[in-house]
Amino acid sequence: MAKKIRLGILGGGGDSLIGILHRVASQINDNYEIVGGVFNANFEENIAFAKQIDVPTNRIYKDFDTLIEEEMKLPESERIQVCSILTPNFLHFPMAKKLLDNGFHVICEKPMTTSLEEAKILQEAHKKAGTVFALTHTYTGYPMVREMRERIKAGELGKVHKVDAQYYQGWINTIIHDKAKRSSVWRLDPEKAGISSCMGDIGVHAFNMIEYTTGLQVKSLLCDFNYLYEDNKMDVDGTVLIRLGDHVKGVIRSSQVATGEENGLAITIYGEKAAFKWEQENPNYVYKLSDTEPLQVLKPGHAYNSKLSLDGTKLPPGHPEGIFDSMANIYKGVAKAIRGENYNSGEFPTMLDGVRGMNFIESTVASHKNGNTWVKME
Amino acid sequence: MAKKIRLGILGGGGDSLIGILHRVASQINDNYEIVGGVFNANFEENIAFAKQIDVPTNRIYKDFDTLIEEEMKLPESERIQVCSILTPNFLHFPMAKKLLDNGFHVICEKPMTTSLEEAKILQEAHKKAGTVFALTHTYTGYPMVREMRERIKAGELGKVHKVDAQYYQGWINTIIHDKAKRSSVWRLDPEKAGISSCMGDIGVHAFNMIEYTTGLQVKSLLCDFNYLYEDNKMDVDGTVLIRLGDHVKGVIRSSQVATGEENGLAITIYGEKAAFKWEQENPNYVYKLSDTEPLQVLKPGHAYNSKLSLDGTKLPPGHPEGIFDSMANIYKGVAKAIRGENYNSGEFPTMLDGVRGMNFIESTVASHKNGNTWVKME
Amino acid sequence: MAKKIRLGILGGGGDSLIGILHRVASQINDNYEIVGGVFNANFEENIAFAKQIDVPTNRIYKDFDTLIEEEMKLPESERIQVCSILTPNFLHFPMAKKLLDNGFHVICEKPMTTSLEEAKILQEAHKKAGTVFALTHTYTGYPMVREMRERIKAGELGKVHKVDAQYYQGWINTIIHDKAKRSSVWRLDPEKAGISSCMGDIGVHAFNMIEYTTGLQVKSLLCDFNYLYEDNKMDVDGTVLIRLGDHVKGVIRSSQVATGEENGLAITIYGEKAAFKWEQENPNYVYKLSDTEPLQVLKPGHAYNSKLSLDGTKLPPGHPEGIFDSMANIYKGVAKAIRGENYNSGEFPTMLDGVRGMNFIESTVASHKNGNTWVKME
Amino acid sequence: MAKKIRLGILGGGGDSLIGILHRVASQINDNYEIVGGVFNANFEENIAFAKQIDVPTNRIYKDFDTLIEEEMKLPESERIQVCSILTPNFLHFPMAKKLLDNGFHVICEKPMTTSLEEAKILQEAHKKAGTVFALTHTYTGYPMVREMRERIKAGELGKVHKVDAQYYQGWINTIIHDKAKRSSVWRLDPEKAGISSCMGDIGVHAFNMIEYTTGLQVKSLLCDFNYLYEDNKMDVDGTVLIRLGDHVKGVIRSSQVATGEENGLAITIYGEKAAFKWEQENPNYVYKLSDTEPLQVLKPGHAYNSKLSLDGTKLPPGHPEGIFDSMANIYKGVAKAIRGENYNSGEFPTMLDGVRGMNFIESTVASHKNGNTWVKME
Repeated sequence: MAKKIRLGILGGGGDSLIGILHRVASQINDNYEIVGGVFNANFEENIAFAKQIDVPTNRIYKDFDTLIEEEMKLPESERIQVCSILTPNFLHFPMAKKLLDNGFHVICEKPMTTSLEEAKILQEAHKKAGTVFALTHTYTGYPMVREMRERIKAGELGKVHKVDAQYYQGWINTIIHDKAKRSSVWRLDPEKAGISSCMGDIGVHAFNMIEYTTGLQVKSLLCDFNYLYEDNKMDVDGTVLIRLGDHVKGVIRSSQVATGEENGLAITIYGEKAAFKWEQENPNYVYKLSDTEPLQVLKPGHAYNSKLSLDGTKLPPGHPEGIFDSMANIYKGVAKAIRGENYNSGEFPTMLDGVRGMNFIESTVASHKNGNTWVKME
Repeated sequence: MAKKIRLGILGGGGDSLIGILHRVASQINDNYEIVGGVFNANFEENIAFAKQIDVPTNRIYKDFDTLIEEEMKLPESERIQVCSILTPNFLHFPMAKKLLDNGFHVICEKPMTTSLEEAKILQEAHKKAGTVFALTHTYTGYPMVREMRERIKAGELGKVHKVDAQYYQGWINTIIHDKAKRSSVWRLDPEKAGISSCMGDIGVHAFNMIEYTTGLQVKSLLCDFNYLYEDNKMDVDGTVLIRLGDHVKGVIRSSQVATGEENGLAITIYGEKAAFKWEQENPNYVYKLSDTEPLQVLKPGHAYNSKLSLDGTKLPPGHPEGIFDSMANIYKGVAKAIRGENYNSGEFPTMLDGVRGMNFIESTVASHKNGNTWVKME
Repeated sequence: MAKKIRLGILGGGGDSLIGILHRVASQINDNYEIVGGVFNANFEENIAFAKQIDVPTNRIYKDFDTLIEEEMKLPESERIQVCSILTPNFLHFPMAKKLLDNGFHVICEKPMTTSLEEAKILQEAHKKAGTVFALTHTYTGYPMVREMRERIKAGELGKVHKVDAQYYQGWINTIIHDKAKRSSVWRLDPEKAGISSCMGDIGVHAFNMIEYTTGLQVKSLLCDFNYLYEDNKMDVDGTVLIRLGDHVKGVIRSSQVATGEENGLAITIYGEKAAFKWEQENPNYVYKLSDTEPLQVLKPGHAYNSKLSLDGTKLPPGHPEGIFDSMANIYKGVAKAIRGENYNSGEFPTMLDGVRGMNFIESTVASHKNGNTWVKME
Repeated sequence: MAKKIRLGILGGGGDSLIGILHRVASQINDNYEIVGGVFNANFEENIAFAKQIDVPTNRIYKDFDTLIEEEMKLPESERIQVCSILTPNFLHFPMAKKLLDNGFHVICEKPMTTSLEEAKILQEAHKKAGTVFALTHTYTGYPMVREMRERIKAGELGKVHKVDAQYYQGWINTIIHDKAKRSSVWRLDPEKAGISSCMGDIGVHAFNMIEYTTGLQVKSLLCDFNYLYEDNKMDVDGTVLIRLGDHVKGVIRSSQVATGEENGLAITIYGEKAAFKWEQENPNYVYKLSDTEPLQVLKPGHAYNSKLSLDGTKLPPGHPEGIFDSMANIYKGVAKAIRGENYNSGEFPTMLDGVRGMNFIESTVASHKNGNTWVKME
């Protein structure tokens, strides 16, 4: 008999897309109840939004520090158990740190921090806290991504020797070709958006997908960015050569000026015996390629799927589930962990994924600045 | 500022697939709160399930009649406003009728009733009640299905002259070829499952999709069923020739023995100027065919889409939403109607869709029994 | 050591599409040499065309009767061995008959004749002649169509219980909605185009594909045509319910007003154990559907394919071959037969296919005229 | 009135795949007659093969030098006009050189030579000869590849800023993981196969496709190969970062160990206004991507296509043509050039493509050996 977990939300108010994604995901498997939070920096809008989504306003706080202060006064049985951090990127680190330091569980949007240094500090804080920390690399919640992971772990591909991952979007085209626009949007301002646009925002998902599905780690990389214009200081396109072991190589391609691409995350993993191919825009298909056998198309909900995959499907084959369901699977894994139930290592991305991600982003920037040379990821 | 609508659930307890579909759909847009219901005929399981999904047990009733009785004692401001009927088919009619008679809004699973006669009685009850009644033809909630409707209404295809709709599944194969199995499952027992299996369960969705998207009505039909075995009394496959007007013809193909098909609902609508094609298993694509222009692939979330379509998309292009989101769009439309907001005629299927559906099912059975002759749908 | 077979061509001059299809197909496997013929009714154009494609003009005749007369004077070792009949439909029968009566082999375009009666006369003539007769149902030459046939024959689907075939085109839209156009084109004039447009021209291919791949015969049918306009006398759309045995049913859908469809021949065959799906516009893929196993995509040129299929592929997997190669496979089968080599029953369509096709066309017309009633195909 | 061009074939005898590809391609548009050649180094097999494909044996020569000698004795009106060179790679250069020096037209298989140095010598010889020289980058003959070229030239994409090309195969997997096999096959022996396997055999096609469709030239590149095993000396996988101008970047990915890939050549070209995507295994579709408009799928044979594209299609839309037809389009362009007719610069790949290709291959090897540094292509 599961009492719902008390969830607090930081950010995500108004028309926020990430807001609705987390709200819906938290509700999909009947595990969470939103009991409070700080949706918005403006207190009036904050309250108004709480009313709009019909969350009691008594635990809607004027700011994050007040939330911590007030919640800590409540008995543990009433206190918010886990907070979802959906605020602007630079706030992820201080909020996550303070939450962990005060014994809260944390669900954190990506990027985890703004630097590898912060990431390592957070990692330490997490070790001390001993609570659950999850980073929302949403795409790892898709049942067929999980299926790839389980089958690769079981040896279905043999030794993996090549990986090709892509995350292509085109939306920055509508901004970058206009000088006035590109010099004014926060997305292309390093002060506000951090050290990397394309690689930090989306390339890191492709990187994470590789490590998640193969169980391998990127050992070194060489990166070339494209800024498109001399006066633009943020990467909007980049290609990364990667090495994952002796003679195990790969490529990560990432772009925000891949005209007409919508949310084109895709990955192919080639092993000695077979290969898997998956595309985010058609997330319910995994293609198994072989040199000698017919191409197979694996779909969710079938008895031939792994336990981890089936756990992420709610309806029988042929009923398409999407990205809200994928995020819900991550929330489901977190709920299990918070409740101390057994869970599989692949059920949600962890602190380690966050540290690896920041390492990746900083390494790509270093490689590019260094004239496209190899950088080791320790 | 929207106070959540008080929702009661009838049926859908335990591992019920339809249960999770409705629960999730009701929560997706922050419009509903489940305040009570009767999840299960067995009271203990009923209470246990309420606890499991953390719904307060004080308004979980031992049966439907008690629910009506007790809720009517509550002041209107606390009373359940709308009930979702997810019980076995034969209960849809009496429950819906009593709910309407007592002034409740109703969301009813399909089929609305077990006969056209019942459907007409319900239609009368609804007229008297003046409350909102919605039938969950889930697939009409997909943004791209709505996009087809809006564009056809605006004349983009010119005069429609041909329609081809299909609903193919294969799952009855695992039952029907074994004599013992096929004579024991309730699905193939006319006493329990009603007058039609294939056409009543899925063919009617294809029929509804035609009327929903084209705005036309089927005027007459000729049907041929396949029972596969002499001793099987339920249709598991059928083809229906339809006429929608002078020289406007079409076909509905429906099967539960279309081996390997999962949930293969698909529709193509051919007009003088262009055609639209849509497939449920890839619901985020609508194909626009032309004899002279390049094929277009329309996707959700783009500025080129209609208001009705965009209203059903929560994230930007490239983030696949699925069947839970589709059902959520129907719940969203119902919420608008309950709150007395303006809504478009296509936002949820209505009583009329239910009456038309029962008419369709009875007509196919009559045509087949009559030696595959034409039957008029008045 | 194969001396090329001496081929004569009747019709197909100028820009004729069917002309280039047959010419190319005859040359693809180094089996034929075009030595003469009558490309065109106009003798000057006839000669000019022969020069254009560099065929010696000494055996280009002024008409068909002259061709027979002159060729019969030549010693057998020089005489044309086989003629391809590419002339207007009404000439197929008299030409084929005279060729057979004079001991020639024949490759005949479809439809074989203009009536079932003629078809039966031709069948008799063919029995007497003992030469090779091939009807160019081009699509049966595709390697993956052949693969389906071989696998079904080997029992891979178990008992076939349902068939769904489609041949959809849209091109008549550009004609039919204009009254002047539709009353003047020969295609819609029964005097010139025969008793059926849509079913005779393309529906019969779908019919043939069913019988070719399943090895079953259609036993009876019920057909409904659409003429679109009162003053149009030719079917431009039709749906045919078919029965192939006890509880083995299917549907053939054919249209020339399926707006935007190009050459949409497709077939799905459902058996107890699995199903095959194939589409002409992507002819190098066969989909194998199962209720329990992952979807398989079979492609040409792989070791897992049958001998009959592999015989029709010239390059390794991944090198797309198309409709010219498909027709070439039929010519290759005919060459084997002419040379008295062993050949498989599926290597080219025969006289029987022609007779069955005419039977099908006449039966659909009879069924429609009779008020959509069942007609037996004896 | 076109007299067929007298074609000689060098190599391509027996079961040679490249042999049948060229033979069929030469015949498809009625432009060529094979009058002689040297199909095979062994004279008996040479003659036997000529008989098998029914080419007169009187001009089948015992070796290449004899062919030149004997043909030069014939009057120009009888002499072979053009030779297709289908022999092992190291023979391409000497044969092409001698043919050009003697005034023949040449159709040469790829790679044009074994080094850039040879390529430049050949370029000089070609300038002197003034005859037609074509290199068979077969894929540039596909109608939809040509369509991309024409539309990009016309400015439909705006300024191109990113290119992503791939050529993935998996067949070397069946060899390389076995030490005995990989050390014995000629394909992986630098002595026999030249300086590059993966990049020289297939990567260069991707390179050519980029330059062909965009009209841009690669200015510099950085390459990383994968050999998979320490004892393997040939690249079987490689990724190449490329620069085509200021802020115009791209990537070429090429592999022979991309398990399960068949002949996966694909290219996407991103411009400011739109993008084009094309895949060799479905060659009759070009996808036009836009950030604001619906995705378009362009197909061959439509009136909306360019003249160059339409010239390469023989049948109406929906009749798939394949790789034989693509090669035939190149032969068609060569025929026009030999006859002195007007032809478009894109109708066949030229000497310049050959020189660029050898430059590309040598540059990738240099970059890799140099520790993955940038190499300029002058």
